This record gives sequence, C-alpha cells and structure tokens, in this order.
Amino acid sequence: MSPERPDGLGAGAHCPLPLSDYPRVVLGHGGGGKLTEQLIEKLFLPAFDNPFLNKRHDGAVLDMGPMKLAFTTDSYVVRPLFFPGGDIGTLAVNGTINDLAMCGARPAYLSAGFIIEEGFSMETLWTITRSMARAAASAGVVIVTGDTKVVDKGHGDGIFINTAGVGAVERGCAIGPGSVRPGDAVVLSGDVGRHGMAILSAREGLEFESMIESDCAPLAGPVLRLIEEGIEIHCLRDLTRGGLAGALAEIARAAGARVDIDESAIPVREDVRGACEILGFDPLYVANEGRFAAFVAGKDAGRAEEVLRAFPPCAEAGVIGRVRESRTGLVVMKSRIGSDRVVDSLSGEQMPRIC
Amino acid sequence: MSPERPDGLGAGAHCPLPLSDYPRVVLGHGGGGKLTEQLIEKLFLPAFDNPFLNKRHDGAVLDMGPMKLAFTTDSYVVRPLFFPGGDIGTLAVNGTINDLAMCGARPAYLSAGFIIEEGFSMETLWTITRSMARAAASAGVVIVTGDTKVVDKGHGDGIFINTAGVGAVERGCAIGPGSVRPGDAVVLSGDVGRHGMAILSAREGLEFESMIESDCAPLAGPVLRLIEEGIEIHCLRDLTRGGLAGALAEIARAAGARVDIDESAIPVREDVRGACEILGFDPLYVANEGRFAAFVAGKDAGRAEEVLRAFPPCAEAGVIGRVRESRTGLVVMKSRIGSDRVVDSLSGEQMPRIC
Repeated sequence: MSPERPDGLGAGAHCPLPLSDYPRVVLGHGGGGKLTEQLIEKLFLPAFDNPFLNKRHDGAVLDMGPMKLAFTTDSYVVRPLFFPGGDIGTLAVNGTINDLAMCGARPAYLSAGFIIEEGFSMETLWTITRSMARAAASAGVVIVTGDTKVVDKGHGDGIFINTAGVGAVERGCAIGPGSVRPGDAVVLSGDVGRHGMAILSAREGLEFESMIESDCAPLAGPVLRLIEEGIEIHCLRDLTRGGLAGALAEIARAAGARVDIDESAIPVREDVRGACEILGFDPLYVANEGRFAAFVAGKDAGRAEEVLRAFPPCAEAGVIGRVRESRTGLVVMKSRIGSDRVVDSLSGEQMPRIC
Repeated sequence: MSPERPDGLGAGAHCPLPLSDYPRVVLGHGGGGKLTEQLIEKLFLPAFDNPFLNKRHDGAVLDMGPMKLAFTTDSYVVRPLFFPGGDIGTLAVNGTINDLAMCGARPAYLSAGFIIEEGFSMETLWTITRSMARAAASAGVVIVTGDTKVVDKGHGDGIFINTAGVGAVERGCAIGPGSVRPGDAVVLSGDVGRHGMAILSAREGLEFESMIESDCAPLAGPVLRLIEEGIEIHCLRDLTRGGLAGALAEIARAAGARVDIDESAIPVREDVRGACEILGFDPLYVANEGRFAAFVAGKDAGRAEEVLRAFPPCAEAGVIGRVRESRTGLVVMKSRIGSDRVVDSLSGEQMPRIC
C-alpha cells in the first residue's frame, strides 16, 4: 500500500503487493481459500476501507435507525446448473439466506439479479425461477426486487445469478470471529462433503454406489432457535467454498485463537468418503451448502447440540472441538490414528464453480 | 398461467405464453423495453408473486420493524469497461444509488458482487475498485459486503458487477406509478442522451466534433432536497435503459394515465443530437445514467424546477409535460413541428450492454 494515499482512499495508485505476483485473476481468486483472502485483504479492503468489511464476516450488520440490519450478497456461477439435491436457483436462495443466518439475523427479503447469455433456454429459466420461488417460500423469505441483463452469445455461460439479502438482527449479539474466546466449543451441524461431491459427480458424469445429493438447505431455522434458547453464540460460519477446514482456519486466523478439533467427531457419510478417496479429495475441504459451525460458550455446548438435533438436517450435530488459550491462530486436528496435524485453508481452488 | 397452481406458486409447470414465442432468451430481453417488461410480467412476477414486485418500481420499499427500507439491485455488464465520463465501477455505484433515490430513500449501504473471467487484469480490477470507492465516498454511501466469483476463461466477459443497495425512506411518501394522477407535472432533470452516445462512441471508436461524456452521476442529493422542500412527489424514475421515452411509456402504462409531453422542452446537447442523427438514434430512447423524471403535483411544478436547478447537473431541469384526465396509458408528444405522436417503449434492444 502506498504511504501517500493520494486520494484518501487508503491505497495508492498502483495495485498493491503481493497481488502484483498475480498480474491476472486466476480461478483460485474465487476459490474461497488463501488467494481469495489475499484478494480481499490486499485489494478490496484497502479500496473500500470501512469497519463493516474489516470484520471479515459473511455479511454486514448495520445500524439502520433504531434497528440492526444484516445485509449480504453472493453471486452463483455453479456448473452444472442442475445437480442431485438442487439447482442454481435453490443455491442462490439458500446460500444468501444462510449468510444472513450466520449474522444472527432472521432472513426477510432477497433481491435477484440475473445475467443471462443470449440463447439461453426460456424453459430452463422458468424452471430455475420456480426453484428460487419454492426455496424462498419454504424459508419464509420474499424476493422483492430484481434485475435482468442479457449478454451476447459467447460472453457469458448460460446464467449467473446474484442474490442479496436483508434481515433483522433480533438480539444485539455480536457474532463474528472477534467474539471467539478460549473455552468456546465448536459445534458442527451435520455431516460434511455432500454438496461438493454431488456437483462433481454431476459435472463429470461419475456414478458412485449411491447417488450423492447436495446438502443444500436453509439454516436460519436452527440458528434462530439457538438464539431463542439463549445459547451464547460467539461465531457462526456456513461451510461453503473451502469446506469445514477452510472455515475453521479462517476463523482461527481472524480471531488469533488456537482451535483443536477431533477428526473422529466429524461425520462424513460412507459414500462421500468413498467418492473422496477415489477422487483424491479430503472431505474436510469439500464445500457444503447446508452445514455450519457454531462457536458457542463452553458451558452451552451440550444444550447447543440438543437444540440443533431437533432439526432433521442437523440430527448429527455435535461438538467437534474447543478453542484453546494459545494465540497461534491455528487449527490443530487430532486424526483418527491419534496424530496431530495443522489444518490450513487451501491456497487456490479445489473445485471451481461449486456455487 | 395454469389455473391449478399445483405448487401454490401462482404459475404452472410450463413456461407461460407468450414467452413460448421466445424459446430462447434474446438480447432484447435485457434491453429495458417491451421484451424485458414481458419477461417480468410473464415469468418473474408469476413465479415470485408478491406485492413488492407487483409495484413495478426501481426498488422495493419494505417495512422493517419501525422503519421503511428501500432495497434494490442491478447487475452491470457494460462494454467497454471504460468510457468518457466513467467506467463500470462508477456506473455500478451510481446506478444502484439512483434506484434507491427513485424510491425516495437516502442511499446508505451497498453490496458488491464481482463475477470475473479468469485472466482478467489485476491492475484493471484495482482501477475499477477504486472508481467504485470514489463514487461511493462522493455520494456518502458505504460498500459493506461483497463476493467474488471467478469463471473459467471463455465463460464470462472480463468483469460483471452486481450491486445491491439499502437506504432509509425518511418520509412515508408512496412514490411509484400508482400515485400518478391527472394534473401532475413531469419534470425532467436535464439534457438527455449523453450516456448512450458516450458508450457507443467508445465502443465503436467513433469521433464526433466534441467528446461526448456520460452523464453518470448520483441523483440522491437533488431527490432528497425535493422531499425536504415538501414537494409532493408522486413518481420518480431514472432514465436508464430505454431512455426518457421508455421510462415515461412504462409509467403511463403502469399508471393507466395519459402523459402529454412537449419535444421542444426536452434539452438535448447539440453534439448528442448530431451523433444521434448520424447513427440513426432518437435521443429520447438513448440511455442516461444521471437523469431522472419526477411526476410532481401540478401546484409544485415551479418550485420543483427551482429546487433542482440549484444542483449543477440539474441546471437545465424543467417541466416537459403534464398528466391528463384521459386513462389511455399513452405518452403523446407534441413534436417541434407541432404534430402529435404517440411515444412508446421499444420492443427490444437499441444498444446492447449499455449498463
């Protein structure tokens, strides 16, 4: 960053290092791992410098008059558009609902922005639109505003969808990496790895012993119940790009806290484990679309498990780790065979265009 | 629309007519004219059926607890990325600010969603990001949340940007086509046609006698001043895709009101008029990014002009027409040579990817 800040924008006229190591954007910059983090840290944060972005959360919590409002956005570029357990429409609604839920907010309203490539099938657009409507209705949110752009053939890829969402933060809980503290329990809401493997099997036409379906689901219900039950929640994160490992590594780093987790406590379905083994993936890094990790006060760990398990998609919820006194900012996992290893986020892209 | 509504979504399993006349999406569906209107009416409204979308405004006005919140979104796919008077970043910020202003809201917070094609220049991304930051700072809004996706080379077009925005509606004014009534004056905020001609000249490498610069500018200042001054505003619309003619035709149709306008009252700069003549465009249909039309109570017309003219970009603001008693839903223009003609929105796309 240039020290002069000639325009008062918190950054100089030239692209900041170490982005100059990457003169061009690579797929990994959108992968949710270290390259994405670097792009945010070195480019977006210096340019847009403000306390909301600096919190590095899934969405922003804003003071709007007398209320606290959560506001978030995501674009969806998943390929293929349809996959076992969902489609780009389901994903575009649930993904943004989940980012609001991770702010401790009750999702209320969504926007929908479509970028469609000329020649895209109208029937497919209709099918996707109806998926969005169904997902919104079943989560109790309303799609209230939208926009459609069409780009000339060869300059898009069928359809991209952006959704933004707003919701009210009903209690003044400060949920985010900054609230994580030693003694917190890490509660995982269910088995991991299904969404990524569902996409990959659909994309590559792979057939495993059983059909792996995406776990795509709205998470606001279980999260709001945790809040209503008075569970002291310090941080929430849905386990999308980068998977469980990426999310925990990012939170540990942002919080400057050491997080110890136990591999044997992390549920992975047998078919997902098998598919991962065949393809050389680690299920801990595979994207999910209906799973989250909650950092809760240690005293509330048992109750949090119990509350979550009442929701069918969270039937396997359980404590998988603890935050330690050490300030290393690392995630350390005790493996099934008893050894310890550091779990870090990936540098680039394990599976492009997963969401 | 199927009468059974088998899924309660207000529409049947098949793509509704007359969209089946268009089995594939064409550029015109994103042009802001009749095809866009048809796509909204026949596909998005039936699928997402709710009173917010049904108002057909630039954004939604929502009840969030004790306050009224405006919420809107737009994606930006403009080509070229840089043009005289702005770039995709300036446009992405001002465009969404303006949609909030058209709801009578004070723009407060924006989200930014980037869809970047692999291989895009990091330096260019930095330049665009800084444009966004500058535009946001100068309009007093904060970019608080964002998302980056990268698509593989050949499946995007450099960069697409979505912004969504929220703002507080400070007074309970019901601004929208539904509030338009006979006797209203139509106030135009300035000369028309500059943005479209600036884009076109940059795209085609055309050189006119003078450089035509986009009018891209934030409109919240003048609009909020109108509200503060107690002007009775019935409808506001920024004159983007489809231009002045498209905006007025859409409002007249939605309001079921006849709007009479006077061509000689509509300012068009000489260089813009010349470029339009050479290229065969009607400046009334050319997109603007810093112009709006206000439907205000007839009694307030003079004051509205006066208030607007205090803002330099609105120095040429003036009354260009009136709403009549007739319920035809048509815009009728008295031309410079004294004849009357009906002004309707275009069917498809005059200039693709203008914003």
